[in-house]
Amino acid sequence: MTKPVCLVLGAGAGIGGTVGARFAAGGYHAVLCRRSNEDGLKTLVGGIREAGGEATGFLLNAVEDDAIEDRIAHVEKEIGPIEVVIFNLGAQIGDRTLQDTTLKQFERGWRMATFALFRTAKALFPLMAERGSGTLIATASTAAMRGNPAQHAHTAAMAGRRMLCQSLNAEYGPQGIHVAHVVVDGMVDAPDTVGLILGEDRFRQLREERGQQDGLILPAHVAETYWHLAHQHRSTWTFELDVRSFSDAPWWNG
Amino acid sequence: MTKPVCLVLGAGAGIGGTVGARFAAGGYHAVLCRRSNEDGLKTLVGGIREAGGEATGFLLNAVEDDAIEDRIAHVEKEIGPIEVVIFNLGAQIGDRTLQDTTLKQFERGWRMATFALFRTAKALFPLMAERGSGTLIATASTAAMRGNPAQHAHTAAMAGRRMLCQSLNAEYGPQGIHVAHVVVDGMVDAPDTVGLILGEDRFRQLREERGQQDGLILPAHVAETYWHLAHQHRSTWTFELDVRSFSDAPWWNG
Amino acid sequence: MTKPVCLVLGAGAGIGGTVGARFAAGGYHAVLCRRSNEDGLKTLVGGIREAGGEATGFLLNAVEDDAIEDRIAHVEKEIGPIEVVIFNLGAQIGDRTLQDTTLKQFERGWRMATFALFRTAKALFPLMAERGSGTLIATASTAAMRGNPAQHAHTAAMAGRRMLCQSLNAEYGPQGIHVAHVVVDGMVDAPDTVGLILGEDRFRQLREERGQQDGLILPAHVAETYWHLAHQHRSTWTFELDVRSFSDAPWWNG
Amino acid sequence: MTKPVCLVLGAGAGIGGTVGARFAAGGYHAVLCRRSNEDGLKTLVGGIREAGGEATGFLLNAVEDDAIEDRIAHVEKEIGPIEVVIFNLGAQIGDRTLQDTTLKQFERGWRMATFALFRTAKALFPLMAERGSGTLIATASTAAMRGNPAQHAHTAAMAGRRMLCQSLNAEYGPQGIHVAHVVVDGMVDAPDTVGLILGEDRFRQLREERGQQDGLILPAHVAETYWHLAHQHRSTWTFELDVRSFSDAPWWNG
Repeated sequence: MTKPVCLVLGAGAGIGGTVGARFAAGGYHAVLCRRSNEDGLKTLVGGIREAGGEATGFLLNAVEDDAIEDRIAHVEKEIGPIEVVIFNLGAQIGDRTLQDTTLKQFERGWRMATFALFRTAKALFPLMAERGSGTLIATASTAAMRGNPAQHAHTAAMAGRRMLCQSLNAEYGPQGIHVAHVVVDGMVDAPDTVGLILGEDRFRQLREERGQQDGLILPAHVAETYWHLAHQHRSTWTFELDVRSFSDAPWWNG
Repeated sequence: MTKPVCLVLGAGAGIGGTVGARFAAGGYHAVLCRRSNEDGLKTLVGGIREAGGEATGFLLNAVEDDAIEDRIAHVEKEIGPIEVVIFNLGAQIGDRTLQDTTLKQFERGWRMATFALFRTAKALFPLMAERGSGTLIATASTAAMRGNPAQHAHTAAMAGRRMLCQSLNAEYGPQGIHVAHVVVDGMVDAPDTVGLILGEDRFRQLREERGQQDGLILPAHVAETYWHLAHQHRSTWTFELDVRSFSDAPWWNG
Repeated sequence: MTKPVCLVLGAGAGIGGTVGARFAAGGYHAVLCRRSNEDGLKTLVGGIREAGGEATGFLLNAVEDDAIEDRIAHVEKEIGPIEVVIFNLGAQIGDRTLQDTTLKQFERGWRMATFALFRTAKALFPLMAERGSGTLIATASTAAMRGNPAQHAHTAAMAGRRMLCQSLNAEYGPQGIHVAHVVVDGMVDAPDTVGLILGEDRFRQLREERGQQDGLILPAHVAETYWHLAHQHRSTWTFELDVRSFSDAPWWNG
Repeated sequence: MTKPVCLVLGAGAGIGGTVGARFAAGGYHAVLCRRSNEDGLKTLVGGIREAGGEATGFLLNAVEDDAIEDRIAHVEKEIGPIEVVIFNLGAQIGDRTLQDTTLKQFERGWRMATFALFRTAKALFPLMAERGSGTLIATASTAAMRGNPAQHAHTAAMAGRRMLCQSLNAEYGPQGIHVAHVVVDGMVDAPDTVGLILGEDRFRQLREERGQQDGLILPAHVAETYWHLAHQHRSTWTFELDVRSFSDAPWWNG
């Protein structure tokens, strides 16, 4: 029998890949998409299969014309109906002043974090609406909630995405599609994003210092919350929640 | 062995009692407190015991001096350490214009919804902090998020409570206490609150019309989300989430 | 001819008194009320009169039964119709942990910052509604917008007040009463509040360091914004605005 | 002597043109830019000149490469230093479902409402920062604050813009540039935008019904609030305020 599909856009070795593995363990076929690093992708897919789950991996450049639309069509036809989509693409480019942010970077942030979500919904929601059910979980960040001195591109893209999620929810919630927006408010133990930004040494140090007292957000636990969201009864849906480490101050406390 | 205690303040036949039953089913001793209706309380406690769980019920008037403090001290001494407290007291008095809201009603709303939470935290958090862990989940409502023409007392009390929860989280999160604020944004299938406000006939009608398509928030499913919150790993805590029926507009869409 | 009255509740040598003076300069009779320091009150009233304005001062303990209600009735009868009320009472008691905040302090904060506003509106709004116009400007603070580790009483009271203002606006806006909520998000050059909390020496130092580059919020300029708010055309009313020094980070940036 | 320049991007016969006229009356040289309708532009410029003010008009297509940047450079060189910029470009395309919103429309909304603001700031803020002062006022709308069923493109663009304004403020506030975000929360008496969307007949009817009781937001009064914002002392700057008619419900009350 065909398993339901959990499509992950932005499946690195942090939240994306871990959520994919969690859904595979729970009976979904995980379709993992990421822009680059084919070896990393194979490792993720291989790990899921070894654990007895089903997974397929694709390289996908979300800013390319038709890349998202074609992949969704292909997955629906060849693998199975997409019941859950994890939208995990970000627009983080590190801290940059206004003058150090190029027009191209600003546009790229929007293409990744906002426009790609619009395209995903436009391609997928009609199919989900016809089936009367489906779930989109968008991984967001503090940048969706407030501006920041050196995050012009990132905050604009993430806030646009948040409001788009509200608009999608308003139109498609009553048609049975659950849109959820998860504000990841703090540093994640994610080698493919935070690790790359900090560099290997600083990331290892951070993990040792903060991780051992659970001061970094652990993707495995984020995955449990995503699982919970995706399986809430439709009488009781959550649109938005935040997650952070117990030892971190929320964004509103700086 | 002593079971951990889940203390429910405001345990009626809606969210409060149902969450208590869920935690009892999961291995907690449910301590159910409510202001009145001893028969209703006995029914709840009896139902939990018949299902093989542990429960104790107390009548408790939360606006009385020392009532909360004494009950907490008693439970900790006689039943076991309170690991989870569900703060489910509300201040809903139905729609009333400013002139129809008396000083007494306004004060009572604050005593129930804001002050009682402050007193609960003051009595319980030092004990939880000493143990290095504990969870408080506050049931909130749309009134915590925006004002409304005929909800002067209710919105003031619920918004004060929300901010108090933020302040409690800021001080006690790093000490291992998880404070979570759940915005119940819509009508709940709750005979003891919504049912009483609407009257028996209108409530039955509402249940038939909206409930059969899951248009009312069902307490059993809210309880699953509370359970999830109370068991999030401390690297990944949620402070706030909203719940509503798929067919309802969120508060920000009116 | 009778001048319109601008009633200031909480008229110290900071925002309250300065706003009163601004409105007196603009043609109002300023009625200044404060809890204590009769000398300070006389100085404020005297200053306004010397500048050619009209002012009257009263000591008023806002937590006393009937004190607000009686004062409003008296002013309306003896001085003139209250067209503008500046609600400037706060609940700041300095930083205190939960355990160092007494039940009494928590209640007092609510009585000053939330309940007194409710009582003011209840006594005054029917009169304003009958006249078809009136303005209430509430001086708020960062505490109305987010919780803080050592501000349990203050944040609960200010957030309750904010939501009450939204509820009042919802009922009375269409009846011609303009409710405005001003979030004073930063340190004010106010000897009677900030000065008392910091102590004379630290306050003088702060003034020298930050004030000379406009790093403290200057009451005279706040007063201009209050004046603007109170005279907006009813086609274009502001409910909420924030103010801070150019050199200060907003609350959402910590 | 050279007058300071007030540059208006999006200068139609509503808020944009009216604000330009207000600043011209107050001593600025108003530079009015709009995409089309050269006759309308001439009427606005002519009106300002007849009233004794200074104004220049330009057609400007904000989505074209370099159009904004070149215009700013030209104005700074030929007319005078831009002290105030009114960013009044919107992304409203009327109500459209997700499936009726094309990729092109979604992108265009972002280019107008978000990207053009980024480009404006990037071109202008270094000049303002060198002078140590300047003001940017962005005209926003309800769409910046919450999603809506048929406003996918509009809400995403306006929310991205809002967060960009917060980021700009965080970096450039301390350098003396005042960024203000005005949430115009309701129908404006604006023939060039609301009038075009509604059509002539419905707009005339609306004006008669609601305008005569001040139920439409009147641009002349919005202009007074913009003027106030642009002249706040730097000790007391407002980042955000909302405006609506007294008879309208705020967005949070639906």
